[in-house]
Amino acid sequence: MLHVVKMGGKLIEDEFLLETFLKNFHKLRGSKILIHGGGKYATILSKKLGLYPKIVEGRRITNMKTLEILIMSYAGLLNKELVVSLNALGTNAFGLSGADGNLICSIRRYVKSIDYGYVGDFNKESVNIKDLYSLIQLNYVPVFCAITHDAKWYLLNINADTIASYIAISMNEIEEIYLHYCFEKKGILKKLEEANSYYTKINFNAFYKFRILNHGMIPKLENAFYALKKGVRKVSILHPSSVCSRIKYKTLLYL
Amino acid sequence: MLHVVKMGGKLIEDEFLLETFLKNFHKLRGSKILIHGGGKYATILSKKLGLYPKIVEGRRITNMKTLEILIMSYAGLLNKELVVSLNALGTNAFGLSGADGNLICSIRRYVKSIDYGYVGDFNKESVNIKDLYSLIQLNYVPVFCAITHDAKWYLLNINADTIASYIAISMNEIEEIYLHYCFEKKGILKKLEEANSYYTKINFNAFYKFRILNHGMIPKLENAFYALKKGVRKVSILHPSSVCSRIKYKTLLYL
Repeated sequence: MLHVVKMGGKLIEDEFLLETFLKNFHKLRGSKILIHGGGKYATILSKKLGLYPKIVEGRRITNMKTLEILIMSYAGLLNKELVVSLNALGTNAFGLSGADGNLICSIRRYVKSIDYGYVGDFNKESVNIKDLYSLIQLNYVPVFCAITHDAKWYLLNINADTIASYIAISMNEIEEIYLHYCFEKKGILKKLEEANSYYTKINFNAFYKFRILNHGMIPKLENAFYALKKGVRKVSILHPSSVCSRIKYKTLLYL
Repeated sequence: MLHVVKMGGKLIEDEFLLETFLKNFHKLRGSKILIHGGGKYATILSKKLGLYPKIVEGRRITNMKTLEILIMSYAGLLNKELVVSLNALGTNAFGLSGADGNLICSIRRYVKSIDYGYVGDFNKESVNIKDLYSLIQLNYVPVFCAITHDAKWYLLNINADTIASYIAISMNEIEEIYLHYCFEKKGILKKLEEANSYYTKINFNAFYKFRILNHGMIPKLENAFYALKKGVRKVSILHPSSVCSRIKYKTLLYL
């Protein structure tokens, strides 16, 4: 059994939620992989440096300057702070970008009407399953940021939910995978303003009906259901208190 | 045989020297480890963010803000750019800080008259020899930046020449070590203004005589001679063109 855990949303910015998450992640038994998002840090650093994100049709354009800030924030500061915190707790954390050891490759997004810049997309060979498994067998806990490379000189930014989904699907060839998307809410909410109105279970049809309500959740849930369709054993959306405890603030996904 | 190569000086800032170095490092046969310095990038980023280094008695004080910039620059941007470039050449590079997998621990420098801040010192147990060797046996080429941790929540900055020296001394228990300090000059110069006036060989006594002339080289050479005294097979100070070629712009150290 291998746990693939994505941490995102406000977990990185909220000290209490972060501590709750890290302690529970540390307690999670068996093999595990962590994938982290970026939080607000890259945006704050951009502003300090006088760079403002270029948004086209609601999507961020990653030019070279933006990419450098993402690498510094995600692969640099956030990744190493998570690693040092987990190590202090006793987890043998190993900070990684996809470029390290050629573990995760991606392909620069094809330019149609919009050039998104240094952004990668995955295919089914993206994750170097064998080498990633070797690290796990050495008792390391890989901690991935959302930076990959194309194996041809370029680092590429990628969505952290998507990395989590592809790692889960790929590693499913070797181990039974439990995929957890962890964020500040208690699961998928029936009513956005009611924190306790979470579904305990949801299937794809129900999600499809509620997708307008949970607008911000669509990319995450698409990645999550995709993993489920591709054979990942269990996929859930959950609160940090529920990563490893009897508290069950989570929505279990099923097909 | 294991090559431990430190790259520093102006190699990181000079595109031609950097390319020369990377191509030669890639060609170097057998097991190898790269350790890189920081170049000017951290200073440039600090200035952009309005932070100016605090220097006490000629030494930089690493406060938390400075440390964050070093982590972003060294463990983030520089480390990943070196990794992606080496991977594109075909070296299976693996970017690391000492915190990753608890590979290199250090102890925060004891405060006497000056508190240097988040700066680490090594001892003989600092390098996790067994785990580092496991990575090499998986055919990875570890690429270390000069950031370590104390295994108790803190990341610490450390001198890159010192890391190189300690890695060489520690790994000497397992393999015969060749330690190379690579920078923009052709070796240790007899006359600073004459680029071709390098010693082909120098011993500790001669270095001691010339230490006033080569003032900037003292910490590097102290680390280099220390490694030699501790049993490292060969230690040299060399130009990037000479890492793996018939060109021999290098000074070989001997006791």
